[in-house]
Parts: sequence; C-alpha cells; structure tokens
Amino acid sequence: MHRNVLVEEIQKKRSYLTVGLDTDPDKLPLHIKELPNAVFEFNKQIIDATRDLCIAYKINTAFYEAQGTKGWQAMEETLHYIPSTHFKIADAKRADIGNTSSYYAKAFFETLPFDAITVAPYMGEDSIRPFLEYENKWAIVLGLTSNKGASDFELQPSGNELLYQKVLRTVSSWGNKNNLMFVVGATKASELSQVREIIPDHFLLVPGVGFQGGSLSEVSKYGMNKDCGLLVNASRAIIYAGNKENFASEAREIALQYQAEMSSLM
Amino acid sequence: MHRNVLVEEIQKKRSYLTVGLDTDPDKLPLHIKELPNAVFEFNKQIIDATRDLCIAYKINTAFYEAQGTKGWQAMEETLHYIPSTHFKIADAKRADIGNTSSYYAKAFFETLPFDAITVAPYMGEDSIRPFLEYENKWAIVLGLTSNKGASDFELQPSGNELLYQKVLRTVSSWGNKNNLMFVVGATKASELSQVREIIPDHFLLVPGVGFQGGSLSEVSKYGMNKDCGLLVNASRAIIYAGNKENFASEAREIALQYQAEMSSLM
Repeated sequence: MHRNVLVEEIQKKRSYLTVGLDTDPDKLPLHIKELPNAVFEFNKQIIDATRDLCIAYKINTAFYEAQGTKGWQAMEETLHYIPSTHFKIADAKRADIGNTSSYYAKAFFETLPFDAITVAPYMGEDSIRPFLEYENKWAIVLGLTSNKGASDFELQPSGNELLYQKVLRTVSSWGNKNNLMFVVGATKASELSQVREIIPDHFLLVPGVGFQGGSLSEVSKYGMNKDCGLLVNASRAIIYAGNKENFASEAREIALQYQAEMSSLM
Repeated sequence: MHRNVLVEEIQKKRSYLTVGLDTDPDKLPLHIKELPNAVFEFNKQIIDATRDLCIAYKINTAFYEAQGTKGWQAMEETLHYIPSTHFKIADAKRADIGNTSSYYAKAFFETLPFDAITVAPYMGEDSIRPFLEYENKWAIVLGLTSNKGASDFELQPSGNELLYQKVLRTVSSWGNKNNLMFVVGATKASELSQVREIIPDHFLLVPGVGFQGGSLSEVSKYGMNKDCGLLVNASRAIIYAGNKENFASEAREIALQYQAEMSSLM
C-alpha cells in the first residue's frame, strides 16, 4: 500500500487504529472453539465488526505458528479475508543475513500478500535491505519496544546516544518514509519527543496503548506528525473484550471507543 | 537433547558438523524438482547421505515459509525424518515480548519437536526467557553474525565493550551452558579468543566456515573447549555440491571432507 493511500484512509475514517489478531485457539468463546476452522471464524467476525473503525490489521505470526501447518493455513485465510482498503502487517520480527531475508521478504510480500512486516535490526543493513526493495511494501523496524527487556540493550548507551536512538538514526538512512516505519513502544512524552527529533516523518507502530488513563492522548500529542504518522495497535483489549456469543459486538464497542478518542485527537 | 548426549554424539562420530537444510525448490536437481513433494524428497536424500557424518541438522525457516503452507508442511515432514540421534535446530531468528515468545517456544519446541531455536537478542531478557524454560531445549542467541551488517550495531561500542560482547555477557547470565548457545560468525582468531573469554563453556553455532583455506582450523583452534563446544554449519556447500542425479553422493563427499578435517582437529 502506498503511503498516500494509508494517509487518506486515516483521514477518511478519522482513525489510526490497528487491530492485532493475536488469536489463541485456547482463548476463543466456546461456541467458536468447537468449529473446525475456529481461528479463522473468530478472526472473520472480529474483522467484520471492526473494519470501519480501523485502518490496519496486524497478524502476530507466533500465535499461528504455535498451531503448526493448521495455524499457517488460518493465517493465510485470515489475510485473504482482510479488505484491500486495510494495511496488513505481519508482526513476525524476522531478519537474517541478506540472502535469507530475501526469502522472508518473498514469504510475506509475495506468497502472502502482506503490506508490511516487523523486522529486528540486530544484524544490520543487509538483513533489512531485502524488505525495502518491494514497491509499496514496508519494513517496520524495532526501535524502542514496550517490554521490560527494552532496558537490557535498547536503552543502553551506544556512543553519545542510546542504542535504540542509534538504530532509528542508522536504519532511517537505509530507506525512506515510503518504505520504512518503526516500532516505538514509548508512551512517555520525553522519549517520543526524542524519537520525533530523529525521525520526524516516518510512521510509528505503537503497541499496547490503553485508551483510558491518558496514554493514547500522550502518544498522539508527542508522536503525531502532519500525516498523522501513527499506527496505534490494540490486540487483546479488543479481540478478547468479550468471550460469549456477543464477543464481536463487544470487540466493536472497544474499537469504537479507541476510534472516538482518536477522532478527537486528530 | 541433553548436553551430555550431544557431547557423546560428537565424540562418537568425531564430527561437529551441522548440515543446513536451506532448501530452495528452484535450486533442486531437475529429477527432484518435478516430484510432488520435492523439498522433502531432496532433504530426505541429503539426510540419508550425511547422517553418519554430522551431529545436527539446521532448518532455516525462511526457505520453507517462502513456500507458504506447503513449505511449512515440508519442514514438518523433514523434521520428523531426522533421526532422534541428531540435534535439530530451527534457524528461525525469532523473539518478541515475553507472552509472544512463549508462543514461539510452543511452536518450535512442542508443535514441532526441535531441540533448539536461534533467537535475536534486541528485545532483551523477557523475549528470550520463555525458550529457556523447557528441559533439554536450547535457545541459540545471536552474538556476532558473519554478515556485513554485523558492523552496523553488533560491532559498535557499548560502554567499554562492543555490543555483541555485551550481549554475550548479559544473555549468558540468564541461562547456563545446558540451555543456551550463541551464534558466533567470527573466524578471526582475535575475535574468537575474546568470545571464549566471556563464554568459555557454552556451545557456539558457527555459520559459513569453508573447509578449505584454513578457517575451519582457525575456528577449531580458538573456539574449541574441552567438550568441543562447537557446532559448525555448512549449508549450500553441502546440499548444492551437485545438481544432477548423484547430488546426494556429491553432498556426502563434501560432508566427508568436513568430517575428516574435524576428526583431525579434535
């Protein structure tokens, strides 16, 4: 998907919500769990209930791979069900030496028609470059993640800056705002302002933002740029909002609250 | 696989060779390419031709994922064909926040019966911890890789040391020599000696070592410890040694040369 189309969709829907399909077959409502193709059926209903409120879906490959071939199949089916108007993210955290990364790019950009894939930066330029060579496809590179382990390396000094800042600065020179985004789990104003100093124009994929308690407004205040520049993801908060027959309408209810707050923040 | 069993297999076979099954369906010999289950058929013949000469097989997930569900199926079949005497490595370069990593651990240690998985360290402790919680299973964490991009971050200063050294030092404290190995692409004596100062006891997975030109002897001289402590991988050099009807015996010929040199170095 071209950047302009993504920006238009955001403006049209007044939403920068990404729904994360972290679908665990053990956590599905009982009436879905017993279906032969339970994961896809669940995702289908979540997609139908949220598609007018979000601009992207993010499929976390771990949840599908945990089911083996059957899970990979459910991922394929889900991906093909997502409307073409939506930005499709493989949250796969891949990257390897250049030759191998080119096979990952083939897997997620050709065999599976994702628009974007999350990528780990540790192995450097040739591990990321193959993902940047597809037109209208995106590498979303890990910058600062939201987990506790971010303090082990990402937040450690590297020269005059922190490692994640070096990653943002270095990786952004390998591509441009049309083929690169960054995962930034920062919700603190100070961190987001620093991120925006380094990469003012790139889209940021922001995980784990609660719509209550102010973090969405903080992220939007310090992270938004003139094209919005944010994809805010919510996974469990939406897909597991309910676990009964009405799970899809409960999911919609939460998605609606995100979208309403986003609309007011734009 | 328990460390003792791995060490015994190495001593018994006088080999620390890992055969990398980086199988690309486009590169198969013509008579194999036309078979309905070509990738598995190819792997099967490679395994039959090399199993007495190597102690491990490494499956690079990228090559299988590039084929979608069909590829994932070929990976499963291949894995089940590898003898139980062999150490089975998923070269998957995974890692995510703790909850997600636990699904990757399930995917590669339960759904698929691998012994080990390669893991990227960028996201820190909670992204690696779930792989260490399985008995007789291993996380093989990226330390210093052999690609050009290693200079972008791995070889950059981090405090008084280089980032990859900090990674080796920090990550080794999260587990022990029975559940952690490291990818070390170093073939230079100076680098390997430094690695062994930080992690004297851990196994190292060493990619891309040619059996001619001395790099195998350098790696062995500076990287070997009293339990051998090395898994040296060769992929393309072995599996694509020939591309005719006799590809398996050509592969065996190369594997035999590796094993012979390893035997003399032990």
